[in-house]
Amino acid sequence: MPDIILVKPQMGENIGAAARAMANFGLTNLKLVAPRDGWPSDSATANAVGAFEDIVNVEVFNSVKDAVALYHCVYATTARPRDMRKQVFTPVDAVGNIIEQQSSHQNTAILFGGERAGLDNDDVALAQNIITFPTNPDFSSLNLAQSVLLLSYEYHRQNNQNLAAFVPTGKSDIATQEELNEFLDRLETELDKKKFFRNNDMRPTMIRNIRAMISRSDLTNQEVKTFQGMLSALIGNKIQK
Amino acid sequence: MPDIILVKPQMGENIGAAARAMANFGLTNLKLVAPRDGWPSDSATANAVGAFEDIVNVEVFNSVKDAVALYHCVYATTARPRDMRKQVFTPVDAVGNIIEQQSSHQNTAILFGGERAGLDNDDVALAQNIITFPTNPDFSSLNLAQSVLLLSYEYHRQNNQNLAAFVPTGKSDIATQEELNEFLDRLETELDKKKFFRNNDMRPTMIRNIRAMISRSDLTNQEVKTFQGMLSALIGNKIQK
Repeated sequence: MPDIILVKPQMGENIGAAARAMANFGLTNLKLVAPRDGWPSDSATANAVGAFEDIVNVEVFNSVKDAVALYHCVYATTARPRDMRKQVFTPVDAVGNIIEQQSSHQNTAILFGGERAGLDNDDVALAQNIITFPTNPDFSSLNLAQSVLLLSYEYHRQNNQNLAAFVPTGKSDIATQEELNEFLDRLETELDKKKFFRNNDMRPTMIRNIRAMISRSDLTNQEVKTFQGMLSALIGNKIQK
Repeated sequence: MPDIILVKPQMGENIGAAARAMANFGLTNLKLVAPRDGWPSDSATANAVGAFEDIVNVEVFNSVKDAVALYHCVYATTARPRDMRKQVFTPVDAVGNIIEQQSSHQNTAILFGGERAGLDNDDVALAQNIITFPTNPDFSSLNLAQSVLLLSYEYHRQNNQNLAAFVPTGKSDIATQEELNEFLDRLETELDKKKFFRNNDMRPTMIRNIRAMISRSDLTNQEVKTFQGMLSALIGNKIQK
């Protein structure tokens, strides 16, 4: 996975929030270059809500050059275009690239600049590639921790694409067609008794529509029992004990 | 595009940061339900860094039910599993769904709970679907503004891909939450009259389950009318000509 490098971050709060974001999405290595308010700091610890304890390792460096020394490829995040001939990636494409690189055992890191002015040109020059977020051009400023969050999320998203997209909640079993039809037949009978189907021509269509709207939601057997119970109550039958 | 609804947000800072995140990725409608620190607030304005001036519109509501009334489909964000049978989406799949829904002119909204405890079960019951973030199971807590940021980013990301043309099937209009809730409220009243809820302890759970099982199938407004008509017939009301 990529390492995260914060270059001259100013506020401990943002270091903590960045670490929290990394921990949320499973990134574990954070490097700090010359943090203005020092390291460790109470504000960083408070905002990390535990991320530094078990998950995120921190190393501190004096220069960007030292911090990036051991990587095969470094990406610099910038909001504005730079005068350098480097490839500019969206987060999606950058992460796709990073995942390919890690599959060939290359170590990668992503550089983020400080809160006020971002990375300076000398820092960007130490990177091979640039990442720019596709934000609203009329409102493009992302804060430091948010930028770290988005790249962490994007990494996790692409790295876990094969996970099941849909997890059913609830433990009840889906009703069988028999249970469902028993209810639908009974509903039809009761509606007939109450003269619900006034028009015999429309009757088959109405019945089909009623069956479709009730059966398309994959009712559980407990839910079918609930429908049965509601029907009994509404037509005024004694509720069974 | 989906609207964002914050339910009982506590800190103005987070309302502001959520609005900033929306503005970054082009979302424009924010609804607040009973914000603890009121609205507007200096802390919200400061943290929005201008998002409220040109981009994000805010409306304030007293109840979730009022806030969701006019949507065709509502997604509730939750971190933990609920005992309700609703479809659980990742942000990726939820946004895919939302983009399909908007192409068939359905209005959608995403509900976010307050900072301390998230959405309560009654709020979740008012939604058709659930979104859960695929965070690190050992470190899953995302703050409110970060959750809004990730969904806003995900929406922007997918909405700017060249999606394969999608043609929605069926021409009927999906019922709004208002139409659906009108029926569900009436059903509850009639079941009360018939003493369906024998056990007061179980009543809230039963009501939530009934709402979930009826609302999760994306009923059209014609189908809601059919449910209303069946209810009238079953309780023995005169059928309107």
